[in-house]
Amino acid sequence: MRHWNFAAGPATIPLAVLEQVREELPDWHGAGCGVMEMSHRGKIYTGIYEQVVADLRKLMDIPEDYAILFLQGGATLQFSQIPMNILDGGSADYLTTGAWSEKAVKAGQRLYGDAIREAGTSAASAFTRLVDPATMTLNPKAKYLHFCSNETIGGVEVFDLKQLGGAVQKDVPLVADMSSNILSRPINVRDYGLIYAGAQKNIGPAGVTLVIVRKDLLGKASKAIPALMDYAEQEKNTSMLNTPPTFGIYMSGLVFQWLLKQGGLPAIAKINEAKAELLYKTIDGSGGFYTNNIATDCRSQMNVPFTLKDKALDPIFLEESDKAGLLALKGHKLVGGMRASIYNAMPLAGVQALVAFMNDFMRRHG
Amino acid sequence: MRHWNFAAGPATIPLAVLEQVREELPDWHGAGCGVMEMSHRGKIYTGIYEQVVADLRKLMDIPEDYAILFLQGGATLQFSQIPMNILDGGSADYLTTGAWSEKAVKAGQRLYGDAIREAGTSAASAFTRLVDPATMTLNPKAKYLHFCSNETIGGVEVFDLKQLGGAVQKDVPLVADMSSNILSRPINVRDYGLIYAGAQKNIGPAGVTLVIVRKDLLGKASKAIPALMDYAEQEKNTSMLNTPPTFGIYMSGLVFQWLLKQGGLPAIAKINEAKAELLYKTIDGSGGFYTNNIATDCRSQMNVPFTLKDKALDPIFLEESDKAGLLALKGHKLVGGMRASIYNAMPLAGVQALVAFMNDFMRRHG
Repeated sequence: MRHWNFAAGPATIPLAVLEQVREELPDWHGAGCGVMEMSHRGKIYTGIYEQVVADLRKLMDIPEDYAILFLQGGATLQFSQIPMNILDGGSADYLTTGAWSEKAVKAGQRLYGDAIREAGTSAASAFTRLVDPATMTLNPKAKYLHFCSNETIGGVEVFDLKQLGGAVQKDVPLVADMSSNILSRPINVRDYGLIYAGAQKNIGPAGVTLVIVRKDLLGKASKAIPALMDYAEQEKNTSMLNTPPTFGIYMSGLVFQWLLKQGGLPAIAKINEAKAELLYKTIDGSGGFYTNNIATDCRSQMNVPFTLKDKALDPIFLEESDKAGLLALKGHKLVGGMRASIYNAMPLAGVQALVAFMNDFMRRHG
Repeated sequence: MRHWNFAAGPATIPLAVLEQVREELPDWHGAGCGVMEMSHRGKIYTGIYEQVVADLRKLMDIPEDYAILFLQGGATLQFSQIPMNILDGGSADYLTTGAWSEKAVKAGQRLYGDAIREAGTSAASAFTRLVDPATMTLNPKAKYLHFCSNETIGGVEVFDLKQLGGAVQKDVPLVADMSSNILSRPINVRDYGLIYAGAQKNIGPAGVTLVIVRKDLLGKASKAIPALMDYAEQEKNTSMLNTPPTFGIYMSGLVFQWLLKQGGLPAIAKINEAKAELLYKTIDGSGGFYTNNIATDCRSQMNVPFTLKDKALDPIFLEESDKAGLLALKGHKLVGGMRASIYNAMPLAGVQALVAFMNDFMRRHG
C-alpha cells in the first residue's frame, strides 16, 4: 500500500509513472527487452531520448539556443563543474541563502579560491529570508551570478527575480540551482544563463542531473578537466560521451509526459500553490502550536519546515504521523523540527491528509 | 515477450531480478513507497545499501582492507578519476589491448600528459591478442599499472595475470578496468590495487560505477579536484557524499543476490565457460563461414565478435537474427561484423538459440 511520502529527495514519484514503468520494465512496447537493457546508441533508445528532450523543451519553453544536457553526479558535482566550464579565468558572484547555496560556494572555492566570491548572504537571519539587496557587494564584471532558487533544507524560495535586486545584471548570466523547484511553475528560461537540477525531487530517480545552458556559454572550459565534464563535449555528443543513466532519463521523460498531460507547468503551479497555501494556513492558524519562521515573501512552496511549540512532542509527532501513513516528516538535522516536502508528485489529497493529522494532533496535544 | 538480448551494455538483466523490481517498485516490503522514493539517509535505504556491500564482499571475497565505492560517471569518468586519486605526482604504466584501454590512456594524458605512459600495446596485431611481455617498457617505480581485463569491443580477455608477464610487479599496484567481465568468474582481489567497472554489463543498470580499492591507496588525491571525486572522501561517507543513484545500487544488490543464490562466482563461471565454448566451437567449426580472429588464449568469454565470410550477408544476418528474437548482434563500428555479448544474465539457452540460428543461417547461405 502506498503512503503519503513527504521525503525531501529522493522523493515520491507519480503513481501513474510507476505503473507505466512496471508495465514496460521487461518489454518496452514489444522491443523484446526493457529500456534499461538497450544500447543507448540504438534506434529505440535514441528515439526515447529525443522525445524526452523535446518534451522538456515544450514543458519549460526552452529556446533552441539553450542546450539540454542529462548528466551524472547530482547538483553537487555541478557545484564544481559550473566554474570548471564557465568561470573562464574570471570571478563569479554567489548569493548564500541556506545550506545548499553555501555548499556551492565552498565547492567552488575548493577549486578556484577567491575567484568564487560570496556577494551576499542571509546567514544573519539564520537563512529565514533572501539576501537583502542593500547588503550585496556585486561585481559588474562577474562571469556569472549563482543562486539557489529553492533551499530544500531551509525552505526559502525565490519567486521573482526582482527579489534578487541588483544582482540581476544585464551582462552577468544568472546560474540557478533549481534542484528542488524546477518544473513546479513556469519560469522564463531566457532570464538565465544556466539552470541545473538533480533529478530526485521533481524530475525522476536519483542519478540524473539536468543542465540547461545557453549555448554561447559553452566552449570556455579548461582543458585540464575530464572531457566528460566539459559541457561543450557533452552537447556535441547529445549527452552520450559515455553510457548515460538511460533508465533514469527514460523515467524523467515519463514524468515530463505526466506533467504535459495535466496541462503543463501552469496547471501544476496552481495545484502547488493550493497545497502550500493550505499547509502554511494550518501552521499560521495554529496559535503558535506549529511555527514556520520564514519571511512570507520567500516561503518555499516545495519544502515546508515547521517546528512544534513543545520540542518534547517531536518524537511523538513523528511516530504518530508515520503510523498514520505520512512518511518522512522529520526535519533536516541542520534546522530540526519537521519538514513536509510537497513536490509536484504530491497531490492535494496528501497535503489534506497531513493537515487533518496536524489539526488532530494539536487537539490532542495542544 | 522477452527476446534473447546480446547487447554489449546496457545489457540484459536477469528476468528474476526484473520481476522482483516490478513487485517492489511501488511499495518496498510494506514501506509505503518504493526504494527510489526513499531518503538515502533513512534506515531502510541504508539497510539495503549495507546488504548490497556485504553481498558483493561475499561474492568476490573482498578483504576488509579494500573499500567498496558505488559512484557515478561510468568507467569513463574513472579514466580521469583514477590518476586524480592515485597518480600522486608520479607516473603510471598503461597496457593497451583495445579501444577501452586506449581511451583510458588518452583520458589520463589529457590531464597528466606524459606521466601517463603507454608501457605496451598490441595495436600491431589489430588488438587480436594481449601485449607481448617482451615488448613492454615497464617503469618499476610506476604508481600503478593499468590494464583492461576484458575489451568489450575487441573481444580480448585476460584470464590469468601471468599473461601480463613482467607488468605484474610486487610494488606496483594493478588497476583493472573490469567493466565487462567483473563477476563472471572468481578472481583474487588481493592481486589488485584497484578494480573498477561500469555497472551496465554484469552488475545492473547504467549510472552506477563500482570501485574496489585497497585502502592504503586512499588519501593521496590532489585538493584540486572536486571532493565528490576524492575516493577517500567517498569512503569516509560510505559513498553518500551526495545523493547516490539509489535505485541502480538497489538493483545491483538484487543481481548480487541472484548470483549468490545460484552458487556465486564459481557456479556462474562454469555456465559462462560452457556458453563461450559452445559459441566459439560453432564459429571455429563453420569452415570459415564465421570467423573470430582473436588469439585463443585471450578470447573473451563475455563479448564474442565474429565476421561472416561474405560481408554482403551482414545485413541479412542481422535482419534475420532480429526477427528470430536474437537482439543486438551488430558488431561495434570499430571492428564491424557481429558481436554476441553473453554476460552472466544470458543463460545457456540463449546461446543455444543463437548457435541454432547461426547453423541454420549457414546452411541456407553457406
